Amino acid sequence: MANFDFTDHSHRRFNPLTRSYVLCSPHRAKRPWLGAREASNVKLLESYDPKCFLCPGNTRATGAQNPKYVSTYVFPNDYSAVKLDQPDYNENEDGPKDPLAKRLLVTQGVKGKCFVVCFSPNHAVTLPLMSVPEIVKVVDTWTKLYTDLKAEHSAGKAPYKYLQIFENKGAAMGCSNPHPHSQAWALDTIPTEVDTELKNLTKYKETYHSDLLGDYVKLEMQEKKRIVLENDSFIVVVPYWALWPFETMVISKEHLHSLQEFNDNQKNDLASILKKLTIKYDNLFDTFFPYSAGIHQAPYFGTEDEVENSWFHMHFYPPLLRSATVKKFCVGFEMLGEAQRDLTSEQAADRLQKLDGDVHFLNK
Amino acid sequence: MANFDFTDHSHRRFNPLTRSYVLCSPHRAKRPWLGAREASNVKLLESYDPKCFLCPGNTRATGAQNPKYVSTYVFPNDYSAVKLDQPDYNENEDGPKDPLAKRLLVTQGVKGKCFVVCFSPNHAVTLPLMSVPEIVKVVDTWTKLYTDLKAEHSAGKAPYKYLQIFENKGAAMGCSNPHPHSQAWALDTIPTEVDTELKNLTKYKETYHSDLLGDYVKLEMQEKKRIVLENDSFIVVVPYWALWPFETMVISKEHLHSLQEFNDNQKNDLASILKKLTIKYDNLFDTFFPYSAGIHQAPYFGTEDEVENSWFHMHFYPPLLRSATVKKFCVGFEMLGEAQRDLTSEQAADRLQKLDGDVHFLNK
Ligand SMILES: O=P(O)(O)O[C@H]1O[C@H](CO)[C@@H](O)[C@H](O)[C@H]1O
Ligand SMILES: O=P(O)(O)O[C@H]1O[C@H](CO)[C@@H](O)[C@H](O)[C@H]1O
Repeated sequence: MANFDFTDHSHRRFNPLTRSYVLCSPHRAKRPWLGAREASNVKLLESYDPKCFLCPGNTRATGAQNPKYVSTYVFPNDYSAVKLDQPDYNENEDGPKDPLAKRLLVTQGVKGKCFVVCFSPNHAVTLPLMSVPEIVKVVDTWTKLYTDLKAEHSAGKAPYKYLQIFENKGAAMGCSNPHPHSQAWALDTIPTEVDTELKNLTKYKETYHSDLLGDYVKLEMQEKKRIVLENDSFIVVVPYWALWPFETMVISKEHLHSLQEFNDNQKNDLASILKKLTIKYDNLFDTFFPYSAGIHQAPYFGTEDEVENSWFHMHFYPPLLRSATVKKFCVGFEMLGEAQRDLTSEQAADRLQKLDGDVHFLNK
Repeated sequence: MANFDFTDHSHRRFNPLTRSYVLCSPHRAKRPWLGAREASNVKLLESYDPKCFLCPGNTRATGAQNPKYVSTYVFPNDYSAVKLDQPDYNENEDGPKDPLAKRLLVTQGVKGKCFVVCFSPNHAVTLPLMSVPEIVKVVDTWTKLYTDLKAEHSAGKAPYKYLQIFENKGAAMGCSNPHPHSQAWALDTIPTEVDTELKNLTKYKETYHSDLLGDYVKLEMQEKKRIVLENDSFIVVVPYWALWPFETMVISKEHLHSLQEFNDNQKNDLASILKKLTIKYDNLFDTFFPYSAGIHQAPYFGTEDEVENSWFHMHFYPPLLRSATVKKFCVGFEMLGEAQRDLTSEQAADRLQKLDGDVHFLNK
């Protein structure tokens, strides 16, 4: 029989960050393109919406009033998923007494604080439509938040161990307010996904005496076929083990643990590569491309190894598969069995490589 | 400060099957019910659709013709995610040569076969609308498939290690054909999720010399507050560590490893509890309640411990949160950080307990 063909034969790829597999079924991508390219009904919103809770000067659901901010704007989430003001969970007092329940109903209290970070006073401009200096302001704001909360933690004023910065973009990703914004949740635990990655980065370091993501950057820069963008400080790749059709990772070339270590050039490079990546995404299907994205970086407090082995990177998880309206569903088999994808990472990277990363389709 | 209140204070709950945490933020459920109960526009479909690929007698996309089947009907998926007819993946020949690539681009070939299992010739009847004897036929069909493929494996005619049976119900769960059906994917690997569960069941057994799910059934039958349904052979619970708002597990009371061990009473009990559960689900928001669900049971081939410690159960993962049209989005924080839910498992169980499990809203 013929040799194994990655673009025709089903295989699993191992994700070394999570130590789980993704099933790749590339022959499925050869099916006729059922959902032909849909007409995209994109329209730029008004730059100000009097009913938006995030626009400058407006009154929020809770009655608080936004200042007339002119660049970025941070405020505590009115409906935070975690709060500081709650009692400690005490296993002995609050936990179950029954021996079976002690084994099977395991609980931890979680305290923290959630923030909303508006990108711009302009209701209509998403990252790909902002200028690089405007995106630098966003990076500065994330950095200041990360640094301020770390200082609060170190001064013993707050219990934070990790700050998860993320953006849900588009209604498809559960974003209810189109005003461009990200969120930042500071928690007194390291969230499961981050904890898993940190443990696996550490295992890799112990085994190979080098850094997983450092090695991975080196490898991808040699192979080139999965690289979508590159500048002095970062690469963007469709990782070998990508789960979502056009999933990417932004990875720092140097060993930067967190935003706090960025110099001005690196901030500029991050802003610039984020702009190019999101322009490519929007140009893929001529739509405002939905995604969830976020930063993985050093925890405030973890084992020394976990802090030392952390490596700044971002994940972009976009759901679209074939057009502006046909998305990949991670459902039955994916939820009960294993993550599954149709096209290969290399095929996805090839399409993203060829797209214009400089001029947004709205400006053509 | 007051004691810890599970219905007000944020906490994480540990899932012993996956060894990961779910963040529970119950105070968020106290927010005003923003999305008021939506008008449900449910309408029973015609019992036969001449354009449906799954209806009896119709011609499928590939040109194959369905028989005029009268009960259940199984056929190989025309667009299978895995196939038997492909070369083996040979690490040395087909894998990378570069030492870094060998470390970081880890691959396995995957062979297998995918089946579609139509529940009934009737295009319109979902599980809650079928009679118990009709659902018994579905259970029989799953059992026969499981047993036949196991025999093929044992006879060395097929490489299958695991059969993943699942159902995607509703457009919200990526189901493109409303004709009630499930799928069954037979693979020559044990999928990640199943592998993780089997490993954790085994670890528990080694530690406590008893079965995790056996203990869990005992505990839930004592506590009662998370039990939604019960009969001689099964319980349905909202697990302590549920991720989706109205997630449930169907667990066998006795140690049954797979469908193959079911006697007629147990088959009847499974059919009957599935009917009641899906009626409750439909009655929750007066809608055809979408979900992905599936069976976890013994692999055909695993370590002796993994086979021995497997325990028949089903997971139901429904996305709806507040109404027929408002779902829970597992997006930014959930994808990058940790699974997150608003209402507690006990609150969800309480709502499901109070719902009618006998009469479907269409028949009221
Ligand atoms: O096989 P179907 O029904 O075409 O497809 C559906 O179920 C599959 C298995 O969960 C998923 O991979 C697909 O994304 C989903 O749309
Ligand atoms: O915080 P928001 O924007 O109201 O809500 C959105 O993001 C959260 C964090 O990913 C999710 O928990 C919600 O399900 C989602 O709708």
